[in-house]
Amino acid sequence: MSDSASATQDHGVIDDAPSVPAPQAGTPHAPRLSAAEEARTLVAATNLAALASLSAEGDPWASLVTYGVLEDGSPVLCLSQMAEHGRNLAADPRASLIITQPDPPADMLAAARVTLAGRARRPADDGERASARAAYLAGVEAGRVFIDFSDFSLFILSVQRVRWVGGYGRMDSATSSAYAAARPDPVMSHGAGAVAHLNADHADALLDIARTLGGYPDATRAACDGVDRYGMDLSLDTARGRAPARVPFPQPLTAGSELRAATVELTQRARAALGRPLSAH
Amino acid sequence: MSDSASATQDHGVIDDAPSVPAPQAGTPHAPRLSAAEEARTLVAATNLAALASLSAEGDPWASLVTYGVLEDGSPVLCLSQMAEHGRNLAADPRASLIITQPDPPADMLAAARVTLAGRARRPADDGERASARAAYLAGVEAGRVFIDFSDFSLFILSVQRVRWVGGYGRMDSATSSAYAAARPDPVMSHGAGAVAHLNADHADALLDIARTLGGYPDATRAACDGVDRYGMDLSLDTARGRAPARVPFPQPLTAGSELRAATVELTQRARAALGRPLSAH
Repeated sequence: MSDSASATQDHGVIDDAPSVPAPQAGTPHAPRLSAAEEARTLVAATNLAALASLSAEGDPWASLVTYGVLEDGSPVLCLSQMAEHGRNLAADPRASLIITQPDPPADMLAAARVTLAGRARRPADDGERASARAAYLAGVEAGRVFIDFSDFSLFILSVQRVRWVGGYGRMDSATSSAYAAARPDPVMSHGAGAVAHLNADHADALLDIARTLGGYPDATRAACDGVDRYGMDLSLDTARGRAPARVPFPQPLTAGSELRAATVELTQRARAALGRPLSAH
Repeated sequence: MSDSASATQDHGVIDDAPSVPAPQAGTPHAPRLSAAEEARTLVAATNLAALASLSAEGDPWASLVTYGVLEDGSPVLCLSQMAEHGRNLAADPRASLIITQPDPPADMLAAARVTLAGRARRPADDGERASARAAYLAGVEAGRVFIDFSDFSLFILSVQRVRWVGGYGRMDSATSSAYAAARPDPVMSHGAGAVAHLNADHADALLDIARTLGGYPDATRAACDGVDRYGMDLSLDTARGRAPARVPFPQPLTAGSELRAATVELTQRARAALGRPLSAH
């Protein structure tokens, strides 16, 4: 059942399959977000999903939906009974959402996405209805226009399966309890501007980090592909080819505001290792 | 069954529901793209979709896919048997795709989208396999990396149902034969730059068109929201409120290159009606 296991299978032999140069130095252990954290972060990053529901004939039906999120990560939909997907969920609760990274890379198969599958249900009581309504409106500003139309209903997706794909070759499942307990990453969601700043103004620091903490002393150029609370992902050029590197922060961050200090500390460590202590910059 | 009919139902009484001022002059008949043309245009505009397939338990499963398109509009997927959606389609052909307008408006529920539902099948013979392969690679450049991996297979979606939603209140179904016979609109797909140019440099012409051909002599400002081979959509301000207007081209266009001449002709007609013949601009 596990795609994690099957993902280690062979893709068949392709003569010109790309190869990646190995690091030439040991690197510190570089933890990553769990699949549950990745999923919660993606779900928090947008309000747009595609819904798979079942028609009266049991056929799958794909549609566009907007959503809000309850504290436990359960998506909240607001659907019209005039629309096919609203009628589908009212008749059969089985449902699945696919949520895709906003601002994805040009190659969409490298984009992060997550499938949440479970059962859609109406709020159980007035208290839950109020929570679901508030969550939907917090996620979907335009919902104020239609949420009180008589043909619209709130649905809460009780998540039973979580399947996260981080791009080519990065994928994992999360249990529903791990998903509910996880929190969105506080750094990744504010990281796009920081990543752009690092690449635009601190390419020299990134290269020093790649050459030391990244394990590639022969790196000739390094760019930051992303950050999260545990560390940064680099892509770097060497004479042997292009390689990815993962560099952990000195300690996991708890807020996006800590990112600057953490990258300065990595740069200090890198320059100390290179015998070039950090000057003011 | 038809959402077109049910879409005329009451949304309930909402005190502050927006109202739209009526035109104050007769306007020419303004044809629009058919639902089949809208669907083909959307399908041609991107290579990214969400797939709804069925798990072994018959549950719906939503996932991200890329696609190419055969001449008759059938989407072509290339999926790995290592991935859940690839195994799902191999076991049960029932499938549905939702394709959403690229570069959508901020309010995603105003975005155009289309659901295609039908049966996914492997190419029937070497000839169809070659066509499907060429179509997929024409749509998905990155496919060259994995299309020959032994775990990947091509699937052709035989479209049985087409449901197009153009945004709030604009929706219709198309038959599978109408969908197969239709062609992508040649103007809409090249229209974004033209629309930006009209709005940036020809707001005066748009206002003249809105005041005459658009039926709103009291318009004080007009912007172009979009173009297609049959005409242009305007949104305009009046002292009575904001209104949409649809203005047909003198004749349907057959290529994006005809758009400039058609808008000049509309401007000439508008200024003749206002007693201000067009001068060089």
